[in-house]
Amino acid sequence: MKALVYKSTGQVALEEKAKPGIIAPTDAVIKITKTTICGTDLHILKGDVKEVAYGTTLGHEGIGIVEETGNAVSNFKKGDHVLISCITSCGKCEYCRKGMYSHCREGGWVLGHLIDGTQAEYVRIPYADTSLYHIPADTNDESLVMLSDILPTGYECGVLNGQVQPGTTVAIVGAGPVGLAALTTAQFFTPAAIIMIDTDNNRLDVAKSMGATHAINSSQENVIEAVMALTDYEGVDTAMEAVGIPATFELCTQLIRPGGKVANIGVHGKSVSLAMEELWSKNITITTRLVDTCTTPMLLKTVSSKKLDPSAFITHRFTLSDIESAYKTFGNAAKEKALKVIINNEY
Amino acid sequence: MKALVYKSTGQVALEEKAKPGIIAPTDAVIKITKTTICGTDLHILKGDVKEVAYGTTLGHEGIGIVEETGNAVSNFKKGDHVLISCITSCGKCEYCRKGMYSHCREGGWVLGHLIDGTQAEYVRIPYADTSLYHIPADTNDESLVMLSDILPTGYECGVLNGQVQPGTTVAIVGAGPVGLAALTTAQFFTPAAIIMIDTDNNRLDVAKSMGATHAINSSQENVIEAVMALTDYEGVDTAMEAVGIPATFELCTQLIRPGGKVANIGVHGKSVSLAMEELWSKNITITTRLVDTCTTPMLLKTVSSKKLDPSAFITHRFTLSDIESAYKTFGNAAKEKALKVIINNEY
Amino acid sequence: MKALVYKSTGQVALEEKAKPGIIAPTDAVIKITKTTICGTDLHILKGDVKEVAYGTTLGHEGIGIVEETGNAVSNFKKGDHVLISCITSCGKCEYCRKGMYSHCREGGWVLGHLIDGTQAEYVRIPYADTSLYHIPADTNDESLVMLSDILPTGYECGVLNGQVQPGTTVAIVGAGPVGLAALTTAQFFTPAAIIMIDTDNNRLDVAKSMGATHAINSSQENVIEAVMALTDYEGVDTAMEAVGIPATFELCTQLIRPGGKVANIGVHGKSVSLAMEELWSKNITITTRLVDTCTTPMLLKTVSSKKLDPSAFITHRFTLSDIESAYKTFGNAAKEKALKVIINNEY
Amino acid sequence: MKALVYKSTGQVALEEKAKPGIIAPTDAVIKITKTTICGTDLHILKGDVKEVAYGTTLGHEGIGIVEETGNAVSNFKKGDHVLISCITSCGKCEYCRKGMYSHCREGGWVLGHLIDGTQAEYVRIPYADTSLYHIPADTNDESLVMLSDILPTGYECGVLNGQVQPGTTVAIVGAGPVGLAALTTAQFFTPAAIIMIDTDNNRLDVAKSMGATHAINSSQENVIEAVMALTDYEGVDTAMEAVGIPATFELCTQLIRPGGKVANIGVHGKSVSLAMEELWSKNITITTRLVDTCTTPMLLKTVSSKKLDPSAFITHRFTLSDIESAYKTFGNAAKEKALKVIINNEY
Repeated sequence: MKALVYKSTGQVALEEKAKPGIIAPTDAVIKITKTTICGTDLHILKGDVKEVAYGTTLGHEGIGIVEETGNAVSNFKKGDHVLISCITSCGKCEYCRKGMYSHCREGGWVLGHLIDGTQAEYVRIPYADTSLYHIPADTNDESLVMLSDILPTGYECGVLNGQVQPGTTVAIVGAGPVGLAALTTAQFFTPAAIIMIDTDNNRLDVAKSMGATHAINSSQENVIEAVMALTDYEGVDTAMEAVGIPATFELCTQLIRPGGKVANIGVHGKSVSLAMEELWSKNITITTRLVDTCTTPMLLKTVSSKKLDPSAFITHRFTLSDIESAYKTFGNAAKEKALKVIINNEY
Repeated sequence: MKALVYKSTGQVALEEKAKPGIIAPTDAVIKITKTTICGTDLHILKGDVKEVAYGTTLGHEGIGIVEETGNAVSNFKKGDHVLISCITSCGKCEYCRKGMYSHCREGGWVLGHLIDGTQAEYVRIPYADTSLYHIPADTNDESLVMLSDILPTGYECGVLNGQVQPGTTVAIVGAGPVGLAALTTAQFFTPAAIIMIDTDNNRLDVAKSMGATHAINSSQENVIEAVMALTDYEGVDTAMEAVGIPATFELCTQLIRPGGKVANIGVHGKSVSLAMEELWSKNITITTRLVDTCTTPMLLKTVSSKKLDPSAFITHRFTLSDIESAYKTFGNAAKEKALKVIINNEY
Repeated sequence: MKALVYKSTGQVALEEKAKPGIIAPTDAVIKITKTTICGTDLHILKGDVKEVAYGTTLGHEGIGIVEETGNAVSNFKKGDHVLISCITSCGKCEYCRKGMYSHCREGGWVLGHLIDGTQAEYVRIPYADTSLYHIPADTNDESLVMLSDILPTGYECGVLNGQVQPGTTVAIVGAGPVGLAALTTAQFFTPAAIIMIDTDNNRLDVAKSMGATHAINSSQENVIEAVMALTDYEGVDTAMEAVGIPATFELCTQLIRPGGKVANIGVHGKSVSLAMEELWSKNITITTRLVDTCTTPMLLKTVSSKKLDPSAFITHRFTLSDIESAYKTFGNAAKEKALKVIINNEY
Repeated sequence: MKALVYKSTGQVALEEKAKPGIIAPTDAVIKITKTTICGTDLHILKGDVKEVAYGTTLGHEGIGIVEETGNAVSNFKKGDHVLISCITSCGKCEYCRKGMYSHCREGGWVLGHLIDGTQAEYVRIPYADTSLYHIPADTNDESLVMLSDILPTGYECGVLNGQVQPGTTVAIVGAGPVGLAALTTAQFFTPAAIIMIDTDNNRLDVAKSMGATHAINSSQENVIEAVMALTDYEGVDTAMEAVGIPATFELCTQLIRPGGKVANIGVHGKSVSLAMEELWSKNITITTRLVDTCTTPMLLKTVSSKKLDPSAFITHRFTLSDIESAYKTFGNAAKEKALKVIINNEY
């Protein structure tokens, strides 16, 4: 089969690889129909994610059709159309039993990381019963690829941890795919205002079309002043960090009012400074989270009931044969006005 | 001044009465600009609410302008435009400190019940600082009359107690003003489906126009079968009772799935039967609540930010001089296709 | 092997039966070392639980040693000492993923009910990875038999659902094993008062020795008056029903203050009357629950850390050969002053 | 009257001052019977709290007898024995209505800070109805001085924000009065283990006598290794910071397991470093809080019901005439083995 393989720092290649088979009785093999590329894949490519071995097939998102199942798999059978979660959950460790699948003792983020991933014709999914989801009939399956990672990430790390509630005010720093996923799902709770902050006017325009009530270009305006002016000089109830650098994290801690929440979504590579001399008395909450994908069943219901349409995230489409071009486009997201790219398999 | 006075069972009259003044330092006197009639006022008229003395001015809803304040009132001053809460809160007893203003040791529902109410030219509001709300500039103040009672009632007793969440399914039994208020505010949380149940096709049509995804006429269909068919034979996550009779309450307990919630909103005059032989193992929650109006500040924010438009509840308008006609129209709500009637003062 | 078999209404017998084996890859077979008898077993015996087929081995509690495991079982291996949960959880259905194992689509209460149970030398446990728990070294394993059912039942249905918190007041109606389990675990949250209500002075004395601050014999005192006198005529914050008849349920709804909780623990066979004409405005919460045993890992920690000593529940000990005498003793609990009886296997 | 006045950096003096009177109708004047000294008072003395004007009477803790009330005060009358909260709450602003009294728009921490405090013979308390508490008959009133500040601080900022629950593991860094208050009140929730960390063996001994299950002297042991060894190399569920310096805060972030909570209690004067490169994926929560004293009514119930005995915090007693000696003793807490000192008025 064809698979996009991480060759060495800076290098990926579409290669022939053996089709995966069942190893454990809880495994399933999925024939991938559509996948996508994540910002994390670009980090791997740059060499930032040390534990990814050369030779690993990349990708942790996608949808497909069940090809084969182990003898302990009971929720799925050959032919089922499935959504693949970026997080593998064994369903039986203490973390899985608490709903914190990200820290599953046997799973967590393993696809395209510690084991071969989804940017291929086939993928083996461990603990299939608790790591795959049935695709409801009559849904736009392309758009469901957005439920593998970005939508649960924005929703769980940003919206739920940020405790967005009716009538509250929200700032989201970073209008990339995950920031926009937070923007989209924050609206489930009807906040009074959502202020989007980024340096790219195109992305801010997209944010407005997706429901942001205000947009601030942080390279052109003083963000703190602008947010304070919009919030009666109180600050926002919730600030979400969706970039992953110290400056944006620190900004979030300056935007919130007493009792406010900073919900981190970004992947960070450095320590940040926390102004405890100001914050100690401000009754704030700061949260971090690797997405658990525990809300995937709920998100599927919102798609089925037309409350959520993830298709707006898809800006480009490629075939698997052309995945290297897809990486280039996605790697130049600002210039290409790319949000998420769909990779179609051609069977 | 003019005031609508409860004369005796079945009788009200618009009469001249002395304008109220400040009694306690925490009082304010409000010049009423708009008020309305509640289903509870009809119950009083029928003699169902024994503790209302003959001679009491009715009404517990309305907006107006501050005329005079006691020397301990600090949040409001003469000339302020204010929303009157149907619940009076002293702000200092243990219930008020917990946010359960309905059981305030000095207040609770007193207006038009234990003291003179708002269907008049002026009203005295005890504990003004914690029982009135500033009306934001540039809001449609007529529609804010809906925030005195029905919207917080639907929201607190139905939506919050019923734990409506994104992707859940909701049934609301009773499409009167309060049931429709629950319908409107349930959408703050983006449930997958809201099934409205009533016997009046006009009200069901209104419900659909206000966002119900399904409508069931319980005089024409088997409600339990219909709801089960809509929910994969699981039942709904939340059932709200907005009628106040045993049959509808018992219906709610039959519509919910394991883990479901029955949120009572209706005012009941009789005991109901609870099928504990079925329910004991079903992991359900049943709640009751007299509205606390603790969410009024939040609801005002949703109106200011255009997330909530309460004007759709208003079907008829009268002047205070003509309030007796307003009672007639509201008393024949089904025939008159009336939801809420506005009573305007004519200064 | 020997097994206690339900023969027909009113009749059980200790018989020879084939030792169970592995059927599904997720099964384990456990060699039982200790089991016990539940009030529910007596109900089965009376014919109250229609779905129990004649020939079924009774029992849903116990501890033992893993004898054999299916090929998909990964948490346990032959020789492990394990606690058996009364609730079987597949770990993969939507209810299990939410922690509501009681409504597991493949499990729930099946042991000694729909499949052969634990009052035997061996038992087959489906979904072993998510239905068994490792016994910590150095714990009194006899006392852990109390964690199969009564302690999670009292804790989840009574204490958690009843929202017992520091400084609150609690009434528990029924001082049988489950009511006493609620009493014991309510103390995890340091309520100000726990009032135990029963008709048996011996059980009330036991309750006092287990931490009840007050005891009321409901056959000798007016319970409502007595509870009101103890609570400044406010009522309790939480009332737990641990009997299972209408009178005690209705009593609970009369004992609570505004904002109070009624947490049902009892198994009911009849409908109850709910005085909605009084309760509709009282801001109360009523809950029901079939135990999920989702708190078993937590309870094991409290035993290991000596915060909970379940041994006080054990009043009598028998061997499996003598289990019919154990049923007689347990069936005459009041006269025998029996709480829980331990059945030891003799290998 | 006599009052302890902040003269200038490093200097306090007991002086004659005019007895305070009623200014606003919501005021009360309290005759102080007992007060104490807080670590914050030492910070003021050092000049760390810039907004305290020279000439201010210090002190924000104490109990006394109502001397005089404004005409809008209804909960208290002359002669009532009262506990003074360190936080003044107006009861009517949006923060007070949410229970976040610390950020009251008219109050918050004002006593001995922005207005004259409690280290005097009399004190004026603004918003008396919502800033004072009745002392229950038959309680040891000396010990209630501990409820003005340290017990709600440890409980709200440490225990509630840290989400201590039955069976969890807790680390508390800092065994001063507030750390010990957190230790004491953490036991309301029956955690499996409470590990106390300090550099002073005397305070660690006190911690053990107050219920710590483990004590680590951080000047003698590697704390991280020791905590990991005690927690199966997982880390604790909750780490509380009760010192107020970067090293101890950063330590807390290293002690917690995935999903863990860092609850800050300490007053900080500097920024801290937050290792987001490790923490971003760890699903943690960090909270800060200025005590709200919203739990004071609950804490009073635990004292009345003998679940909490705060008298163990009192190590020394002085008279008001001798308060300067009390400051010296409290300023040398380690050498003097001082926790809290009581200052008695001598009428």
